[in-house]
Amino acid sequence: MKSRNKPRPSPEQVSELTTNRLSIYLRCLTELEAAHVDTISSQGLAERFHLNAAQIRKDLAWFGEFGVRGVGYYVKDLRRHLRTILGLDRRLRVAIMGAGNLGLALADYPGFRQEGFEIVALFDTLNDKVGQVSRSGVAIHDIRQFKRIVRHERVGIAVIAVPAGAAQQVVNLVVAAGIKAILNFSPGTLSVPADVKLKSVDLTVSLESLSFFLARGDGESLGA
Amino acid sequence: MKSRNKPRPSPEQVSELTTNRLSIYLRCLTELEAAHVDTISSQGLAERFHLNAAQIRKDLAWFGEFGVRGVGYYVKDLRRHLRTILGLDRRLRVAIMGAGNLGLALADYPGFRQEGFEIVALFDTLNDKVGQVSRSGVAIHDIRQFKRIVRHERVGIAVIAVPAGAAQQVVNLVVAAGIKAILNFSPGTLSVPADVKLKSVDLTVSLESLSFFLARGDGESLGA
Repeated sequence: MKSRNKPRPSPEQVSELTTNRLSIYLRCLTELEAAHVDTISSQGLAERFHLNAAQIRKDLAWFGEFGVRGVGYYVKDLRRHLRTILGLDRRLRVAIMGAGNLGLALADYPGFRQEGFEIVALFDTLNDKVGQVSRSGVAIHDIRQFKRIVRHERVGIAVIAVPAGAAQQVVNLVVAAGIKAILNFSPGTLSVPADVKLKSVDLTVSLESLSFFLARGDGESLGA
Repeated sequence: MKSRNKPRPSPEQVSELTTNRLSIYLRCLTELEAAHVDTISSQGLAERFHLNAAQIRKDLAWFGEFGVRGVGYYVKDLRRHLRTILGLDRRLRVAIMGAGNLGLALADYPGFRQEGFEIVALFDTLNDKVGQVSRSGVAIHDIRQFKRIVRHERVGIAVIAVPAGAAQQVVNLVVAAGIKAILNFSPGTLSVPADVKLKSVDLTVSLESLSFFLARGDGESLGA
């Protein structure tokens, strides 16, 4: 399949909800490829994975014409296109700020590596943490070495896994080191300059979706 | 504001993308209430928080008519409605399976408690973990006590934070104890009976959204 690519939209034009959906489509295509499915229509994709066919077509239309009339999408090709669109065709190098439970859990999270992210370093301030390694072997460095190691390890993304009270200070350090993309797990509002992309993960949203299910279902004995 | 409530839709009718958006609207309304904003239109909500006004109206229309002509939404009222819709008007009691780094991090995650979830217990199989408590004081129990403690503590939601290899076995135990809602952080596919809601969190999606930003932006020196 040859796709007639549109001029690349700027990151501001494409909403985060769209990129989140692109990630979901990518997961679906990976599953289809593993199941040896060669082609699929937007309708088929929607039915199989409980998605919206019109939405799929609209999301993909931002980036080109990937469907082939009478065929649908070639699974392998569309998957490769999505990986390129999402910037996953190169390994991105990630540093994790904070080697507490969350930082260590993220350093060893198997999904990151699978999708091409490389966790290259953990950073902490505590003497008894610095010099240790996570279970999967990621070294914990002194946060005072951050700038040097970022340059040396070519870190592109920083993950904030420090307590809320320290988060803004750590974000400032990350920004000062020239990092343009930050994934934040700390609650509360953080500020960054306009040219830095900050994405905050709110784990509560997932629990609320389950809460909705329980409230609507017959989960009569579940509340406190 | 009095809302003419529609007959409650079944959980199957409302997609997870919709409930995720309801959670986001709730966050926005909480922020507006804190900023002493009394009323807001769907348009105003959309502009202020980079959302889609038509989508907001469509999502809310599932549950009733909350807007008032010429006024918009009453922030405080809509927030209360959303909390009820999401089942957050009662405290939901949560157990975490696995007291490794991820389980301990989740047990101490401040967002859960803020939104009305109560983490009542951690479970593990390891002798040196059982009997300990997390930093915020959640007790780690022997997983063999699971059924008894679930009943005693009236647990409604289980969170899976065990290694992938043990996840299905632990999910089976959770289902056998009568729990109907499971939040899974373990990678890989898990199966549950039709009356159990399983939601898997894929942390990689957030990183991919940053990757997209870096790929589209001018992050020329960031790849490996």
